[in-house]
Amino acid sequence: MPKSWSRVVIASVSPTVDGGEWPIKRAVGERVAVTAGVIVDSHEALSVELVYRHEDDDTEHITRMPPAENDEYTGTFEVSEIGRYLYRVRAWINRFGTWQDQFRRRVEGGESQAEIESELKVGVSLLEDAAEDAPDDDQELLEAHVDAFKNGNEQAALGDEIAELVRRHAPHHQQTRSATYEVLVDPKRARSGAWYEFFPRSVRDDDEHATLDDAAERLPRIQEMGFDIVYLPPVHPIGKTNRKGPDDAPEAGPDDPGSPWAIGGLLEDGSRGGHKSVHPELGGIEAFDRFVERADELGLDVAIDIAFQCSPDHPYVEEHPEWFYHRPDGSIRYAENPPKKYKDVHPINFETEEWPALWHELKSVFEHWIDHGVTTFRVDNPHTKPFAFWQWCLRELRKETPELIVLSEAFTRPKIMYHLAKLGFNNSYTYFAWRNTPEALEEYGEELFHTDAVEYFRPNFWPNTPDILHDELVHGGRPAHKSRFVLAATLSSAYGVYGPPFEHVDNQQRDAKEEYAQNEKYEIRTWDWNDPTSLQPFMTRVNRIRTENPALQQMRSIQFLETQHPDLVAYGKDTPDNLVVVVVSLDPHNPCEGQLVLPLGDLGLPHDSAFSAHDLLNDARYTWRGTHHYLKLTPDTPAHIFRLDRDGSREDTPPTYDRPVHA
Amino acid sequence: MPKSWSRVVIASVSPTVDGGEWPIKRAVGERVAVTAGVIVDSHEALSVELVYRHEDDDTEHITRMPPAENDEYTGTFEVSEIGRYLYRVRAWINRFGTWQDQFRRRVEGGESQAEIESELKVGVSLLEDAAEDAPDDDQELLEAHVDAFKNGNEQAALGDEIAELVRRHAPHHQQTRSATYEVLVDPKRARSGAWYEFFPRSVRDDDEHATLDDAAERLPRIQEMGFDIVYLPPVHPIGKTNRKGPDDAPEAGPDDPGSPWAIGGLLEDGSRGGHKSVHPELGGIEAFDRFVERADELGLDVAIDIAFQCSPDHPYVEEHPEWFYHRPDGSIRYAENPPKKYKDVHPINFETEEWPALWHELKSVFEHWIDHGVTTFRVDNPHTKPFAFWQWCLRELRKETPELIVLSEAFTRPKIMYHLAKLGFNNSYTYFAWRNTPEALEEYGEELFHTDAVEYFRPNFWPNTPDILHDELVHGGRPAHKSRFVLAATLSSAYGVYGPPFEHVDNQQRDAKEEYAQNEKYEIRTWDWNDPTSLQPFMTRVNRIRTENPALQQMRSIQFLETQHPDLVAYGKDTPDNLVVVVVSLDPHNPCEGQLVLPLGDLGLPHDSAFSAHDLLNDARYTWRGTHHYLKLTPDTPAHIFRLDRDGSREDTPPTYDRPVHA
Repeated sequence: MPKSWSRVVIASVSPTVDGGEWPIKRAVGERVAVTAGVIVDSHEALSVELVYRHEDDDTEHITRMPPAENDEYTGTFEVSEIGRYLYRVRAWINRFGTWQDQFRRRVEGGESQAEIESELKVGVSLLEDAAEDAPDDDQELLEAHVDAFKNGNEQAALGDEIAELVRRHAPHHQQTRSATYEVLVDPKRARSGAWYEFFPRSVRDDDEHATLDDAAERLPRIQEMGFDIVYLPPVHPIGKTNRKGPDDAPEAGPDDPGSPWAIGGLLEDGSRGGHKSVHPELGGIEAFDRFVERADELGLDVAIDIAFQCSPDHPYVEEHPEWFYHRPDGSIRYAENPPKKYKDVHPINFETEEWPALWHELKSVFEHWIDHGVTTFRVDNPHTKPFAFWQWCLRELRKETPELIVLSEAFTRPKIMYHLAKLGFNNSYTYFAWRNTPEALEEYGEELFHTDAVEYFRPNFWPNTPDILHDELVHGGRPAHKSRFVLAATLSSAYGVYGPPFEHVDNQQRDAKEEYAQNEKYEIRTWDWNDPTSLQPFMTRVNRIRTENPALQQMRSIQFLETQHPDLVAYGKDTPDNLVVVVVSLDPHNPCEGQLVLPLGDLGLPHDSAFSAHDLLNDARYTWRGTHHYLKLTPDTPAHIFRLDRDGSREDTPPTYDRPVHA
Repeated sequence: MPKSWSRVVIASVSPTVDGGEWPIKRAVGERVAVTAGVIVDSHEALSVELVYRHEDDDTEHITRMPPAENDEYTGTFEVSEIGRYLYRVRAWINRFGTWQDQFRRRVEGGESQAEIESELKVGVSLLEDAAEDAPDDDQELLEAHVDAFKNGNEQAALGDEIAELVRRHAPHHQQTRSATYEVLVDPKRARSGAWYEFFPRSVRDDDEHATLDDAAERLPRIQEMGFDIVYLPPVHPIGKTNRKGPDDAPEAGPDDPGSPWAIGGLLEDGSRGGHKSVHPELGGIEAFDRFVERADELGLDVAIDIAFQCSPDHPYVEEHPEWFYHRPDGSIRYAENPPKKYKDVHPINFETEEWPALWHELKSVFEHWIDHGVTTFRVDNPHTKPFAFWQWCLRELRKETPELIVLSEAFTRPKIMYHLAKLGFNNSYTYFAWRNTPEALEEYGEELFHTDAVEYFRPNFWPNTPDILHDELVHGGRPAHKSRFVLAATLSSAYGVYGPPFEHVDNQQRDAKEEYAQNEKYEIRTWDWNDPTSLQPFMTRVNRIRTENPALQQMRSIQFLETQHPDLVAYGKDTPDNLVVVVVSLDPHNPCEGQLVLPLGDLGLPHDSAFSAHDLLNDARYTWRGTHHYLKLTPDTPAHIFRLDRDGSREDTPPTYDRPVHA
């Protein structure tokens, strides 16, 4: 027999992830819209409320959840602080509400005076219950109603105000409450950051190894291009033992700089440096601090790379051999995927008996860089380390650093990618680079943005990375670079680009692998940072459009649209005050003519009057009417980003761009 | 820091209901197909197993779950006993599997002899770990392999048999286990019972009040018609106070029998009888016992009605006034939905302070009838009693009586109906009576049979009840009765009919309400039980088709088919050995010509050869080929039930019917 029970059942609460096992994610300033399915036996009025608080706030806030359709109740709250919010639903029988509803029907049905008076007595006892804990003012009001009821005043019993007054003070009969659910509230850039990746050692105009001070000189340019986050491959000392040469050659020449992901090497003073050191040739920790400071001045966040693997020269190898895998002869195993061998790095054995010391040390790597002003990290291959480690590590880090942004570089199977997001990564690389048809993009968009995934998985779309140069960019050249950039920057609200080769449409693959030739991973490259023919102006314009259109800073409202051409993809994104429609051609070689079909009602556009369309990429303005709109995209102009004005045919906002860009 | 952790994560298990909060439901003899999403960091071979047992069985049974697509693993088990089964998933790293996979690639990749020998040493230690707990025979085999490995025998390391041997005995590294989930295993009739409802007092050929002994004489007829369960409205003494008259008249005449749902009245000996008594005019408990015995001889189950409400004459009213609602003047409230009053019954107050005594007493009502041989119950308005009561009561009852079948008569909002099913009702009335177009039927079918609802909600389809006489049956007459009967009997596998008026196409509504005129609820009717023009032969045939076609005894495999006519609905249902296609016309007035479109691949039918179609309703046989098949349904023949033979153009099973039925 149950010890206690309630007639009220909260049958469902959403959004939740796996029934509340994991937090939902929001960016600061967003609203959380909660829906609860609440039922009760018989016919009773219910009061349903949403109870929420920031984890650091002892006071609970309460908001009513009015009824919607199908026994569901909805309420919203704003997450105004970074960190963790807790929310739950409570519901109880609103006895006075039930009574009032029945009383109204008794009066209307013409029940006898004796019956009415008897029922008013029931009402009196409900008023008296409510008056007990009410503050003085309300108590007086309630007592006045008691008198009216006792005098047989039917009308006094039927008002909305008395209903609300009693509801507010009456004891919560048969109250039941849901489990408590969490919201992880991230900085806005976790939702809408634009990332720019580059190798700091390659920023000089000659082919010398650059320092982070040299790299800092490129920051204003990146900031002017509209990026939010600069992401640097590992900045740590690079191992010499088994160092890789250009184009992944198994042996390096004496002057080859090596891969930054072979972490750990000799410092100038003869000591060894690992994950908490900066490569001497990059200028050491002082140059790093100056780099972060300069970025900060420019409003840029610095993201560094966390790759938990060690070159044979890493201090851990000597100090903690127990953290590695061993061969029967006692030697430490290098990374391998038989028969391939990666002799420049040792993987870490997370199953070591000394795992608590290992885990603490790895967590302290993050803490070290947080102390140096970095709160944004790109984690290399998190799916080759235990899920339990990340769950613990990220949760612990967020206790001190709730503004943490952690991008999961797990290009692996869907369930693994999703699970990493659930346990704390708040940005994730995706399959975007391999989705190259309208159908594939739409299907992927539906999965990411219109399923429960949107509650916890924040896709960060990259058209390229040092490891990924898709055939599409190789064969499609400049038009494909423009198309893919627009798609990355507008499909998801978080995106990034491995900048230098992308801007310069440098698209030579090594050995027909999906990877750049002369890859900066293994050698120093020089780039013309002031090339007027580069994609820099185009990328700048796209970022400005993102900044000025809130619809592009969120990923929930996307709706794919018909184009009547197999190579054109189109989608609308909106907020209450902003509607953007993007059309992109996926044919880099031929012009494509199609019809953009606008579902006017869904997009909030007028059916019977004109509305304006402003192509923000080339500043052209149109007056449109109706659903179908002819479009022609060409290799030179492979994309449109329209802002549509719902309120009429004129757009009142002044043009915000100096000149159209014909990049 | 976690105290313990595993690299293996079981990310999902299905089927479950609300993440395991409620059991899934199966009928005895069914198989449960379990899918688990299991992931691990890095590249490791996993062993995944399904562990299950009957709650009364101390031994756990284990079956392997081989990998399927997308990191999912699947396994099945049969639920061969009624009661509760428990199942969970466990998964661990199959070290030898990982090692063997890598070793194979080392050998194929041509690693050096020294490397191969080093790896074989790793293999040896895995073999030795496995040998430790292996039984003697297997230990010998493992040790033989140890020797082979030590001798550098590569081939010995690559076999499937050694992999399986080690897997079976090796320690479970990094094992993780899911939560434990429940299956409620019901009798087959919970899934595929055909119910027949009638008022036992109305079975005589004259208009006298019949007894249960009279009613028992009708049982062979019901059994011959192919029904499984006879359902009787309440058989208890009927209150005299405020008794209702014919057609729901507020006052009864001296000879009116009253509504069986006004439970509780005076017995002959002057005592009061309630939910544990049998109405004297039905012959008392002795007649009831004889009725149950006769049904049992015929293989019929008896279902009685549990309606927890009391006439003013019920013994509870006098003995336990605290179980009822009171007016301010102390009098007990009758049921009302203001301004309507139901003065012949008092509702029970489940919130009474004396609820434990009340709950125990109500549970004992079920137990009383279980002692009299009844394990099937139709519960009247369960949604006006607390969910918590049903959850407790049904769970307690099933401890002694796992074969319990409890039909929820909750015609209310969807969330409430679904919740009652989750907490223990294993059959539920539905909205079927109000779904009267192909679109509405298909949409409802998709919701019931192709969503998670199918795991816990067993829809029991009724074309009519004493409370429901839909306009469709009124205006559509005999053809509509036949159509709706075929739909009820073949869409869901559980169905029922309020027999006497249905067989006789008695379809007069009272005051255009959706209710029978001269309703048997309030008066005694007489029926011609041997009327050759009744629907009895037609219903008999449909039930025989159900009995002989396993596809119609389950509800999961249904697939709706195209008919190219707006008033024709068609669907296929199948098991591995049985394929049935049903086509029904919803136009009772006009012939409908359409094309039955068979998706051959989905239905397992041959694309390039003929197959036979046997119309089981009229015994016509056709040889069909291809996808489109012309059909004409008429008011006389408003339905086809085809058995299709997948294996060729001839159906080898002999005809099972004596004669076609032209009812």
